Amino acid sequence: MADIVTRNAPRAGDAYSTEDRRAVYRTILERRDVRRDFLPDPVAPETLARVLLAAHHAPSVGFMQPWDFILLQDIGMRRRVHDLFTKANAEAAEMFSGARQEAYRGLKLEGILEAPLNICVTCDRRRAGPVVLGRTHIRETDLFSTVCAVQNFWLAARTEELGVGWVSILDNAALGEVLGLPEAVVPVAYLCVGHVDGFRRTPELEASGWRQRLPLVRHVHEGRWGEPARDGALTRGIAEGQAAICDGRFMSEGIG
Amino acid sequence: MADIVTRNAPRAGDAYSTEDRRAVYRTILERRDVRRDFLPDPVAPETLARVLLAAHHAPSVGFMQPWDFILLQDIGMRRRVHDLFTKANAEAAEMFSGARQEAYRGLKLEGILEAPLNICVTCDRRRAGPVVLGRTHIRETDLFSTVCAVQNFWLAARTEELGVGWVSILDNAALGEVLGLPEAVVPVAYLCVGHVDGFRRTPELEASGWRQRLPLVRHVHEGRWGEPARDGALTRGIAEGQAAICDGRFMSEGIG
Repeated sequence: MADIVTRNAPRAGDAYSTEDRRAVYRTILERRDVRRDFLPDPVAPETLARVLLAAHHAPSVGFMQPWDFILLQDIGMRRRVHDLFTKANAEAAEMFSGARQEAYRGLKLEGILEAPLNICVTCDRRRAGPVVLGRTHIRETDLFSTVCAVQNFWLAARTEELGVGWVSILDNAALGEVLGLPEAVVPVAYLCVGHVDGFRRTPELEASGWRQRLPLVRHVHEGRWGEPARDGALTRGIAEGQAAICDGRFMSEGIG
Repeated sequence: MADIVTRNAPRAGDAYSTEDRRAVYRTILERRDVRRDFLPDPVAPETLARVLLAAHHAPSVGFMQPWDFILLQDIGMRRRVHDLFTKANAEAAEMFSGARQEAYRGLKLEGILEAPLNICVTCDRRRAGPVVLGRTHIRETDLFSTVCAVQNFWLAARTEELGVGWVSILDNAALGEVLGLPEAVVPVAYLCVGHVDGFRRTPELEASGWRQRLPLVRHVHEGRWGEPARDGALTRGIAEGQAAICDGRFMSEGIG
């Protein structure tokens, strides 16, 4: 295939407009993990095709594209997965104690049965043969590639007004059996997908007081771990940008 | 914080316009792993702040936000990391044989010294205490959250006309020593970041013939592994959408 380079400046229309950039940031900021706002309406096949194609265009180590997507609409299959969740969630609750356990039990953490569509995103660890370019030293990079596909899916879904919730309280070995996965294929993400009543302004765990958003500026280092960033314009931009996001002013009024 | 829900339909301006959706898909499709098109121009601090904030608004298991960002601009530090790459890459080349090894040696796989900015994105595996909501059964979900932050960073960077390349051919233990990482903090992604001469139309590994883009429709299953999707409108939408992406017609002319 020809090695075509899209130059930045010369051709009109090549660069992203301010509106384009705003749309991308808006999507990133308005994406939510959805657990209980699902509507039963089916997802249109054309929409699902687009969102899956967005996932398929994620980066992958060695261009491995190790992902597969198993669509689950049948209520019987979803009940089997929900049983796995119920068992794992009961085990999880026992790991917390006191008020924290009570708070945990009060949270709704999945929408397996309410969302009309569930999707298990898997990683085929043998997809590109025994030696994969770029995966020679960090074996998990194939799993990481699959996660990039999940994040693409999530963002594309948000622009299509589709809610997505990632259910991680599951026994993956049992899930693999339910789905008939071959030995080299592992579940990476179990997603609940569907239209929603609305998108919450803040993450549910933040709204419920479980845990707060961290100030990003404390997590940006320079040169080595623990050395704060030295550029005042950068640290100001981060702190002011984060405040603007909280107030819904990000990328408006010249901020950010 | 108030539990505000943004309803989809009622309020004007709430839904994403077709142009907004196009901007998001365009970003996803035009994102590239950049290795050799970097320009030496510095990254403006306001731009870097926005891209880091996009990363910080990734989903995370239990709202853990386990990421940190170590900025490396100093050439001495980048040379030390480049030395680690050179050593690992020589080891990697030995794992291929014959023509494949020759092809491997011909590829440029990083831009550590050319890109003006490197960023190591790390995961603090103890960030939210010993028991993390949602991470009780799948321990790697904190690493996966960090990867979601990387993908947000990558997409936001693309709209800012910043190239990003993920260098995975590194010994992470040695990298952790160079960066002075505490015991519980692990490197997840080592990124080269900078303005570029242009963005390539196709991934470099595809253009060089190393590996081809897979047909997505073969990797969408229904109900369980190996059962093809039954909805003709979905499989057509996927196949036609993928063809449209190849031809640069996606989301135009009513396609996709």
